[in-house]
Amino acid sequence: MSTAVRALARALNAGDLRHLARRRLPRMVFDYLDGGAEEELTLRANRRAFESVFLLPRALRDVGERSQSVRILDQTWSSPVGIAPIGLAGLFWPDGDVAAARAAARAGVPYVLSTASCSTLEAVARAGGNPWFQLYVIERGLADSLVERALAAGYRHLVLTTDVPVSGRRERDLRHGFSLPMRWRARTLWDVATHPRWLMQVARYGVPQLANLASAAAGNAQAQAALLQRRMDAGFDWEALRRLRRRWPHALWLKGILHADDARRACAEGVDGMIVSNHGGRQLDGAPASLEALPAVAQAAGDRPVLLDGGIRRGGDVVKALASGARGVLMGRLPMYGLAAAGEAGVAAALDLVRQDIDRVLALLGCDDVGSLGTPWLAAPPASRL
Amino acid sequence: MSTAVRALARALNAGDLRHLARRRLPRMVFDYLDGGAEEELTLRANRRAFESVFLLPRALRDVGERSQSVRILDQTWSSPVGIAPIGLAGLFWPDGDVAAARAAARAGVPYVLSTASCSTLEAVARAGGNPWFQLYVIERGLADSLVERALAAGYRHLVLTTDVPVSGRRERDLRHGFSLPMRWRARTLWDVATHPRWLMQVARYGVPQLANLASAAAGNAQAQAALLQRRMDAGFDWEALRRLRRRWPHALWLKGILHADDARRACAEGVDGMIVSNHGGRQLDGAPASLEALPAVAQAAGDRPVLLDGGIRRGGDVVKALASGARGVLMGRLPMYGLAAAGEAGVAAALDLVRQDIDRVLALLGCDDVGSLGTPWLAAPPASRL
Amino acid sequence: MSTAVRALARALNAGDLRHLARRRLPRMVFDYLDGGAEEELTLRANRRAFESVFLLPRALRDVGERSQSVRILDQTWSSPVGIAPIGLAGLFWPDGDVAAARAAARAGVPYVLSTASCSTLEAVARAGGNPWFQLYVIERGLADSLVERALAAGYRHLVLTTDVPVSGRRERDLRHGFSLPMRWRARTLWDVATHPRWLMQVARYGVPQLANLASAAAGNAQAQAALLQRRMDAGFDWEALRRLRRRWPHALWLKGILHADDARRACAEGVDGMIVSNHGGRQLDGAPASLEALPAVAQAAGDRPVLLDGGIRRGGDVVKALASGARGVLMGRLPMYGLAAAGEAGVAAALDLVRQDIDRVLALLGCDDVGSLGTPWLAAPPASRL
Amino acid sequence: MSTAVRALARALNAGDLRHLARRRLPRMVFDYLDGGAEEELTLRANRRAFESVFLLPRALRDVGERSQSVRILDQTWSSPVGIAPIGLAGLFWPDGDVAAARAAARAGVPYVLSTASCSTLEAVARAGGNPWFQLYVIERGLADSLVERALAAGYRHLVLTTDVPVSGRRERDLRHGFSLPMRWRARTLWDVATHPRWLMQVARYGVPQLANLASAAAGNAQAQAALLQRRMDAGFDWEALRRLRRRWPHALWLKGILHADDARRACAEGVDGMIVSNHGGRQLDGAPASLEALPAVAQAAGDRPVLLDGGIRRGGDVVKALASGARGVLMGRLPMYGLAAAGEAGVAAALDLVRQDIDRVLALLGCDDVGSLGTPWLAAPPASRL
Repeated sequence: MSTAVRALARALNAGDLRHLARRRLPRMVFDYLDGGAEEELTLRANRRAFESVFLLPRALRDVGERSQSVRILDQTWSSPVGIAPIGLAGLFWPDGDVAAARAAARAGVPYVLSTASCSTLEAVARAGGNPWFQLYVIERGLADSLVERALAAGYRHLVLTTDVPVSGRRERDLRHGFSLPMRWRARTLWDVATHPRWLMQVARYGVPQLANLASAAAGNAQAQAALLQRRMDAGFDWEALRRLRRRWPHALWLKGILHADDARRACAEGVDGMIVSNHGGRQLDGAPASLEALPAVAQAAGDRPVLLDGGIRRGGDVVKALASGARGVLMGRLPMYGLAAAGEAGVAAALDLVRQDIDRVLALLGCDDVGSLGTPWLAAPPASRL
Repeated sequence: MSTAVRALARALNAGDLRHLARRRLPRMVFDYLDGGAEEELTLRANRRAFESVFLLPRALRDVGERSQSVRILDQTWSSPVGIAPIGLAGLFWPDGDVAAARAAARAGVPYVLSTASCSTLEAVARAGGNPWFQLYVIERGLADSLVERALAAGYRHLVLTTDVPVSGRRERDLRHGFSLPMRWRARTLWDVATHPRWLMQVARYGVPQLANLASAAAGNAQAQAALLQRRMDAGFDWEALRRLRRRWPHALWLKGILHADDARRACAEGVDGMIVSNHGGRQLDGAPASLEALPAVAQAAGDRPVLLDGGIRRGGDVVKALASGARGVLMGRLPMYGLAAAGEAGVAAALDLVRQDIDRVLALLGCDDVGSLGTPWLAAPPASRL
Repeated sequence: MSTAVRALARALNAGDLRHLARRRLPRMVFDYLDGGAEEELTLRANRRAFESVFLLPRALRDVGERSQSVRILDQTWSSPVGIAPIGLAGLFWPDGDVAAARAAARAGVPYVLSTASCSTLEAVARAGGNPWFQLYVIERGLADSLVERALAAGYRHLVLTTDVPVSGRRERDLRHGFSLPMRWRARTLWDVATHPRWLMQVARYGVPQLANLASAAAGNAQAQAALLQRRMDAGFDWEALRRLRRRWPHALWLKGILHADDARRACAEGVDGMIVSNHGGRQLDGAPASLEALPAVAQAAGDRPVLLDGGIRRGGDVVKALASGARGVLMGRLPMYGLAAAGEAGVAAALDLVRQDIDRVLALLGCDDVGSLGTPWLAAPPASRL
Repeated sequence: MSTAVRALARALNAGDLRHLARRRLPRMVFDYLDGGAEEELTLRANRRAFESVFLLPRALRDVGERSQSVRILDQTWSSPVGIAPIGLAGLFWPDGDVAAARAAARAGVPYVLSTASCSTLEAVARAGGNPWFQLYVIERGLADSLVERALAAGYRHLVLTTDVPVSGRRERDLRHGFSLPMRWRARTLWDVATHPRWLMQVARYGVPQLANLASAAAGNAQAQAALLQRRMDAGFDWEALRRLRRRWPHALWLKGILHADDARRACAEGVDGMIVSNHGGRQLDGAPASLEALPAVAQAAGDRPVLLDGGIRRGGDVVKALASGARGVLMGRLPMYGLAAAGEAGVAAALDLVRQDIDRVLALLGCDDVGSLGTPWLAAPPASRL
């Protein structure tokens, strides 16, 4: 594995990690990770938003000591950057969820485990570090059982993903026949066959399963997927949330909030925090960039913490998000590129790059604490100069 | 034809259908379908407009049941997407108008038959499904005869196309010598010769004619085209419309309205509805994107239904149009790509893709009925965030 | 020359004419015609401005008869499109100024002869059609002599070019060593040698000279250029204009006005009309697009006629300029592409393309007379829709 | 060296000089000069800002005499364009700092010597022309010793660079292993080996050192770099500035000011002038274009002179900066391209190109003195026209 380690050491940014992931993964797996819904309008909008916001630095402030740790509800994050829930991480690396959770734990930031993980939530809890658990809007029975298990395993943060009442249309996946179960085609067989190292690693652990659902579906992958799909509950509404709120005694987050009215309603329903997200451009193609939606949501949320995901590739992006109203951010693709490149070490490298970025950007900005970031640190957009 | 069926089954979006059409059609026929006027500024503006509008989804609404049927005047559309009038559809597929009308009828949406169709309006009426008939601003005698026949054949919706007082300048066509009659060149002969399957299919049915005009022109193609061109009436004005209104007892639509004042005048003249359109960028190059012109027209039209055409490639585009004030949309190129790819099945596939899109977009938007779409579902444009 | 005629007959637009010119002319001559100053920011801005303005058509207006003739001061133009002054037209075609002037005369539109023409102003006057004469801001003696000659030759419109107090920096020309006299390089010799047809045509007439200055400079090309350059008078100011105004009893135009205050001053000084121009992007790189500068100038000019040049490639552009406040436009590159392609016939073809365009655009716009064009025909820019 | 001279004579603009530099320098050295931080967003924003601002020329003003000399504090600049501090100029040309300082002295404009220069400040002072000295925010001891030496050597302008509390992340450099000391890689060895002329010139003078620090670090390059890095003082604040202000009796400038509040504070602290800069896009990637930040800073600075650097490539850019509020500008990359291309002659050529540009732009603008430039010379941006 030493070439991977050497390559990792030379990876300077998200682009490099993405490149390593692309080389190691079969194209269909890479595209599953990399792609977005339909025409990927929202995927691109996420990046364009960050590239359109400029930061206004201050001079001659004492930034000899910089702090990027944040306290959010009951937790202290060493850096305002957690890992977003990503399904099927076991396809990127054997026991990928556990590897990523360990890296997050060591870095002192939260790992949000996806319902559609390949490791059980219990296994991930044992990896340490107080991970969070993500839940889809699924029917009551399945939800209850997962919530019970999460409670029993010691999870203290539950993230309800609100933006998947139905699946987004990811055409890259459809083109590859990438689904559970796989629709094998000559092209995809060749794709896998030409990535023998990946194949051996994955095969050693057996075909990745949606582990949290495996018992219910008796270990049958096809049945698991069908289960998850069939039990998605497009009728899950605020009433259903209220019931969940009553069953979950700890921190409850809503993920996928883009509208200020939903933020207000969430507060009224006793939600603890929310995550401004368009699911990384993987659900509603045509949803606005999460950074664009953030200010209105953050204002509506009052003192409840608001996180953001979607499009974060650099520490500078994190700082822009915080200056726009977020208390922290979640990253999906970036740590997963690292995971695919080199396992736990790759995730750690991704987190470390961002942490160093933030530290440097704070210094260059003349800001000694992420807690003091806000709109005064944003430059007016170019159009306003005349 | 089984390869066409298989290819169709793998077509995921408008781009795939367009690709199939491009492969099957001689280049000059494809360009006739695909191109726009002059520099194609308006053609591109139509698409750019849709890509610039973002949708703002709502969370946790019960979208277990979604409805996309709409009632417009006396008809119920199963989906807010009809087929726009396209001339010479017989060049895309034998008896293309009938094939497309059948697909629309099966899908439960209107088919608008062009005056310049290759099948007679009577033949299309027999295909079922209550098609609409489109009329150019032509001189009184020819118009009267067509209106009489449409009435007799059972048409109940008449669409007067207002944006063709003269022909647009489609330079792709001029370059190919594509006209009625054809101006054959070595290059175009080669073009046709290298598409033998298309040639055989078309030849079996004889040279496509402007069937609605064939009797008047004694079956001579050159005479038909001359007839249509010569009888275009650039002097057709609101007074002429009033006369048409008196002669047509059923629903009367104006197609090609972009100005709010024209919408108001249309209402005053007793028009039943109107279609915001720049003729798919095929007439006045430099006309605004139809989506840009829509809001002002929709407001001016009051409670009369307003449709839109121009640039629709996805269900998300339909939703954006409806949120911007349209009651339904018409699609031209997309179903015609399908027709050229695989006949009736291709049209059905195009309609089905869009229907599925709309259903999914509604769910992801948190909206259970297209009837409740409106500006609150649109995100403010990026520039307004600061 | 029959291939040129055939090629001309197939030229559909400005791009085709430009392509023909590019094939026939040595690269250095083509670049002299085609290029702009420095980074060509203004050259590109001119085109971008036209592509950003949209026209809002009206429906069902009687446009059976369209008029594009305009009356400007004492002249009636058959179409609102004259030919802008272009130096060294003799390099594009033998006796190019005369050929172009003849084409303009036949078309019934003005030809503005450049001071830096290769034919004498007397010869061009004999070509008929009431051409205009353009004058640089040159020292009194040279100006007086040219004005005298212009008067004697029957010119009735004098255009003072205000935007050449010094020469613009055209880096394409500098790179080719293209200047009077030429700085020959191996590359440019090769360039000329590989265009034998052009060389023979031009050689037959001898080396083109700045004919209006030839007598003063005793026929020596180097001396002519030096003369023109040396006598450019960067000190030519409003006072000098007043003197010119007194000496010229007929219509006096200022060309190169971009600022509203200059328009007001021009009116106060008794100028008869003005031409909004950035010299086709050939002088101050960084000057605004002429279409952008037009509205303020037109307003300031009150009832004095305002023309525009810079970036016109289509009839639609002419209509946009007129709707933005111009009474007519001048075109430089487009007729010169035609001239280089096929002499007088090429200029006629260029004028004819634009005339046909304007007629069609008027019809499609629902406007029967260019005289009634104005801002109500412009669509609000996209950004204003929400 | 005659080929260099000939190439220089043909260099028409910044792009040509850059091209010459690129050919002569090893890629890693060129990239050090050419590149910016991280994704180079700010590097590109600097250029885009200049390309988005348009100048509004005036007609018929007497511009027979143009003046571009400016008086700034106690100095008269022959042209409003000095040379910005650039570290390691000795890598571009042997004794590069001295060569550049000489060119500036001959041109009558200031040269700002970097702390990280390869020649001692004493040697550069001997080159004549009243150069300025630039100081990093470094710890007191090192700063004091440099300030003492600068005073003793006769410097009368001290520029404190405020935007390097820590180093920017220049990924091109990291990729090459370009640092002090070098991290040699096969690729970079090859890079150097394939530029033998550069290698011989540099080797003749020995390995370039950070000369101002060489004595403190006993001539050891590694120690010098470590020294500079270790002694960067991210805690350098306004209090530290006050101390510096007391120790430096002559003109004191702050470089790196982008916020109006910092400009006000700087005035209150007795600073003599300031330089709006984002360090040429080499420090905080995401900082606004310096031209965008300029107007607010210039207004806040009242009557204290404000300079700008970042993105200047042409005389027109200088004029835009002056019209936006700057009293003068500094250029970094452009004269360094010249230095790398041909030493002192190259720097002179760069300065001369810009000087000629400014003179021509003034004439074309109708402005006879850079001192009268201001916002009335700027065109409103395109968006405002409707």
